[in-house]
Amino acid sequence: MPKSKIKIEVEPIGKRFFIDEPANCLKSIQDAGIEIKSVCGGKGTCGKCRIMFMNGSANEPNEQELKILSKEEIEHGVRLACQHEFTEDTTIYIPASSLSEEQKLQVIGQERDIKIEPVVNKYYLKLERATLKDVKADFNRIKDSLKSTHSITVDNIDFRVLREMPKILRENNWEITVSVRNKEIILIEGKDTTDKSYGIAVDLGTTKIAVLLVDLLSGKTIDKKGVMNPQISFGEDVMSRIDFASEDDMKLKQIQQVVIDAINEAIVELCNKNGLKVSEILEMTLVGNTAMHHLFLGLPVRQLGLSPFPALTNDSIDLKAREVGINIATGGYIYLMPVVAGFIGSDHIAMILATGLYNMEGNCIGIDIGTNTEIALISQSKLYSVSTASGPAFEGAHIRYGMRAAPGAIERVIIDPQTCVPKIQTIDDKDPVGICGSGILDAIAELLKANIIDKRGKFKLDSGCICKDNLGNLQYVLLPSYYEERINNNQDCGVKNKQDMTQKDTAQNSDTDMEELKKSLCPCDDLISINQKDIVEIQLAKGAMRTGIEILLENAKIDFKDIDKIIIAGAFGSYIDTKNVINIGMFPNVPLKKISQVGNAASIGAKMALISKTQRKIAEDIGRMDNYLELTVFPTFSDHFALSVSFPSPEEII
Amino acid sequence: MPKSKIKIEVEPIGKRFFIDEPANCLKSIQDAGIEIKSVCGGKGTCGKCRIMFMNGSANEPNEQELKILSKEEIEHGVRLACQHEFTEDTTIYIPASSLSEEQKLQVIGQERDIKIEPVVNKYYLKLERATLKDVKADFNRIKDSLKSTHSITVDNIDFRVLREMPKILRENNWEITVSVRNKEIILIEGKDTTDKSYGIAVDLGTTKIAVLLVDLLSGKTIDKKGVMNPQISFGEDVMSRIDFASEDDMKLKQIQQVVIDAINEAIVELCNKNGLKVSEILEMTLVGNTAMHHLFLGLPVRQLGLSPFPALTNDSIDLKAREVGINIATGGYIYLMPVVAGFIGSDHIAMILATGLYNMEGNCIGIDIGTNTEIALISQSKLYSVSTASGPAFEGAHIRYGMRAAPGAIERVIIDPQTCVPKIQTIDDKDPVGICGSGILDAIAELLKANIIDKRGKFKLDSGCICKDNLGNLQYVLLPSYYEERINNNQDCGVKNKQDMTQKDTAQNSDTDMEELKKSLCPCDDLISINQKDIVEIQLAKGAMRTGIEILLENAKIDFKDIDKIIIAGAFGSYIDTKNVINIGMFPNVPLKKISQVGNAASIGAKMALISKTQRKIAEDIGRMDNYLELTVFPTFSDHFALSVSFPSPEEII
Repeated sequence: MPKSKIKIEVEPIGKRFFIDEPANCLKSIQDAGIEIKSVCGGKGTCGKCRIMFMNGSANEPNEQELKILSKEEIEHGVRLACQHEFTEDTTIYIPASSLSEEQKLQVIGQERDIKIEPVVNKYYLKLERATLKDVKADFNRIKDSLKSTHSITVDNIDFRVLREMPKILRENNWEITVSVRNKEIILIEGKDTTDKSYGIAVDLGTTKIAVLLVDLLSGKTIDKKGVMNPQISFGEDVMSRIDFASEDDMKLKQIQQVVIDAINEAIVELCNKNGLKVSEILEMTLVGNTAMHHLFLGLPVRQLGLSPFPALTNDSIDLKAREVGINIATGGYIYLMPVVAGFIGSDHIAMILATGLYNMEGNCIGIDIGTNTEIALISQSKLYSVSTASGPAFEGAHIRYGMRAAPGAIERVIIDPQTCVPKIQTIDDKDPVGICGSGILDAIAELLKANIIDKRGKFKLDSGCICKDNLGNLQYVLLPSYYEERINNNQDCGVKNKQDMTQKDTAQNSDTDMEELKKSLCPCDDLISINQKDIVEIQLAKGAMRTGIEILLENAKIDFKDIDKIIIAGAFGSYIDTKNVINIGMFPNVPLKKISQVGNAASIGAKMALISKTQRKIAEDIGRMDNYLELTVFPTFSDHFALSVSFPSPEEII
Repeated sequence: MPKSKIKIEVEPIGKRFFIDEPANCLKSIQDAGIEIKSVCGGKGTCGKCRIMFMNGSANEPNEQELKILSKEEIEHGVRLACQHEFTEDTTIYIPASSLSEEQKLQVIGQERDIKIEPVVNKYYLKLERATLKDVKADFNRIKDSLKSTHSITVDNIDFRVLREMPKILRENNWEITVSVRNKEIILIEGKDTTDKSYGIAVDLGTTKIAVLLVDLLSGKTIDKKGVMNPQISFGEDVMSRIDFASEDDMKLKQIQQVVIDAINEAIVELCNKNGLKVSEILEMTLVGNTAMHHLFLGLPVRQLGLSPFPALTNDSIDLKAREVGINIATGGYIYLMPVVAGFIGSDHIAMILATGLYNMEGNCIGIDIGTNTEIALISQSKLYSVSTASGPAFEGAHIRYGMRAAPGAIERVIIDPQTCVPKIQTIDDKDPVGICGSGILDAIAELLKANIIDKRGKFKLDSGCICKDNLGNLQYVLLPSYYEERINNNQDCGVKNKQDMTQKDTAQNSDTDMEELKKSLCPCDDLISINQKDIVEIQLAKGAMRTGIEILLENAKIDFKDIDKIIIAGAFGSYIDTKNVINIGMFPNVPLKKISQVGNAASIGAKMALISKTQRKIAEDIGRMDNYLELTVFPTFSDHFALSVSFPSPEEII
């Protein structure tokens, strides 16, 4: 029996790798294809390769580290990767500052043309200064001037802007620019700044946060940034974060704070890069699933983890940014779109807004694939949405060699149906280190097409390309080199020339034959592969999605043939091969031209609400018109699910 | 020349006293009539007699103090009075906790009957709990129930109430009471609490803070508390506080914080005493002069100290209590009435509201006497207000033996016109320790009536009852015992039997005679008295007020004979003898029955705005209708002032 390997889990990028024997951390991480910074080349002097050892697994810091790391860092398990070895299974956290390139994060999608009408507008004023004969208060002087010069009525001034006002007025010779939002003054700046008007739109995902810097005058996205959601260190999926946050108020505060900090940092970076101050950001909009929405606000989430999973509010929220500690203009607000239910968040509404699904004619489906997949169907102007627990399989979780869409991930797979040998494509053409969602989907579809798995998802032992790991689990190796080697060496193992196999395939194999065949398979551990358990995970995930679609159709009393359009939103959805989505039965068999991929529609929805009052109003209307269907109370749920986990028959493959 | 005395200034009660030689602090303070606590009788064990030595004048703490006082207290100059001696001129601060009784503070005045219609109302709800078939969000469930059960529309829920909501709902079996303010939920409590509804009304004065606990259902004042404004330690008058707060942002924060703390403490005490939690206080209203209003909000005040003294806003303010750190109900608001100008604050509007001046017929004057005296005149439905810098003379400042209305203060004076001997009455019948505003006013009026001072305010040397202090300043002693002693002993001094004097009085005295007379006066230092400088202070103060009244009359083109009513508001105003107000010429000579005293009208105005939306609206209307007249730009200002500082002629005395 081979010696057991050392497993290294890397957060927040969600990658796992194995090493054979104790090895230097920096080198191991680099070998695994993760681009961690290292300027001094491992001497321990540059301090760039900081990593955090989780669960108290950090060794004592050495002298070099005591010099470079702060006391607080040391207490929190931060060490220099170059100064330590991995000697046992370990989970580490690599902060963004230690990574030499950002993870591949798609932050925006397709935009639609809309009228620019931001909720905050700027007005330049040149005021008469107060005299003993005219001692009107500063604010009232501004108010009257707004009325007479711009015909703008103002009722209120932010309490902190009131504090800043007298100094700005007097230092700028009573020439100011006033930012007005819903009859309230939320910012006063010296001189004329009416040509500068900026906002931030945020799509707060479970895994990643997309932050857009938007010009409120032109409606253009000036810059964007994708960062990992640091809450991953408290739990990869939503449920484990809900559990963590429900433990006590301190933990709720903690899990809120990390995401507030991450957004603040992203805003600072975007502003610095574009020559702006954060205090010039007039407004922020934010969308996210209901748990992310609640955690961002520091709202309790315990009830989101317990049936019937109610949200705390369905309504949109206008909140002073300072109430949650987001740093923008003095009196600036954050606008949060409505949420529909515990599992249908404002990101879903943003998607419906961005895609225009809400007023499409015919029968149209919008689907945002993720850990939870939300699906909306508009049919005869009625809008219904479901949420399916599709699981994080398509994000690489629970898949043995699964990983997120980071460099080195296998993202495309084609299997030669003759030889059973795969061709792969990796992100950034790096050496393969794992397989991401689109790669998994491709692999399954190709395995079906090449007749290597059957419609129940079982490996066909006699397909001639199956091998087994050291525990005897069947798997299909995704590395072309593996097959070439074996075939060239003419090794006696399950992997043979397809032509040999074809003959055997025609014979009816007895159970005994099969057992013997299994025994004869050569071991192929430690190679990037898809195993039987991985296939089951994908069956469950795609089955859940298909069930959601089927129930939406049944509820609207229409057939899949009546579908006029399927819009796939989300970063993952834009990478996948739509043909394969149909081939694995995730979607019903509709003509491919009916399917479109629009990218991160949620962030576009957030941006639309940022630059347009009308779009904000529409989002709220969507919130009210969207009917939530709870799948589990639907009478035919179990039937649909049972059917949906199977794959299409070979003849259905397109 | 007599040995100089040691001067002790006591804050925040604004008292000054002298001791002849170094003496124990506790004993000296007690001897001066200040009721400082002392349980152990000066052994230094009970720690009750804590005082703070100002300006770094504290000596090193002794062992006993090191045991009892905290490190922080010691750093801040806090010591036990019983353990130290006064050896030189010293300013001390006695915290309220060390005083055995509260200073005499009138906190409420006459109330008018108004309809109870508070801005916050409570509604009891028994909700259906969420199920998988009805997963409406908690807030929306409440909103819908408010609509269906009580026909109440709610648009919004306070962000922090949203945080508290899920737990309260689930721990109380979905039976809750919701407090609604302007379509916003500001508090959710478990079970039915609709029979408990409370608010706080605050009149924030320069010297004192009146805090009223009000039942919002009955409109009754349940309890009240008067506390000294702790900002006194940063400056006795408004201008010195403005100077302090303008030094830097930290100092502004500091002077704001002490008043926030004092109000919070008063709320806690009132709540504890009445079996309430501060979190049950649904709303607070606050009135005060413009500087107090701004400092409470932490607004910059520099411009209030510079011509033309503009306020930052004239408008009423609705502010979340938490924004300034006032602890009441989770989402509770503070409502601040409008201010008219830099020297016409919301306390003035509250007075106009409380007295009903704003809709009186005829020509009516409302006057609130203080450091600044604000005067309003309503005439033909037009409202004009002025502010006069009457100075703090009537609060005892700048008067040699002046003090605030605390126990031992002379509050009433009658002088026998035959013997020139005074009769006095002190607060709480304690031994006299000084003279407060009403006593000063009485004394001046009686000196005029007894012909001891002339209409220019000069002492008549030959009046037979003048003596001089050790610097030769003329003064009139206010202690009856002094005269009895001298007369009984038949001492050769200015103080003689009035009958002797009458003869002399008939003769025309030459200047030489007068000089000799002055020399012959006996010394009478260290006795509570009124001196020439004190009289000048009062002339300036009352002259300023009279000037304000005259200019208001001139502006309205009416004569003092047209005045239908004069309402005197404020704590000081309710103690004074209205006859004497006319006799010193502070008011024009109107029939006494036209003058009424209504007590602290500002706190009543604050309370009215607390219990009635309509009254709040009226206060805002008053803010808009009130025309501020700046006295100094009025062409006849100097003429009026020159005339007003004189006293009436003897024949005008009533």
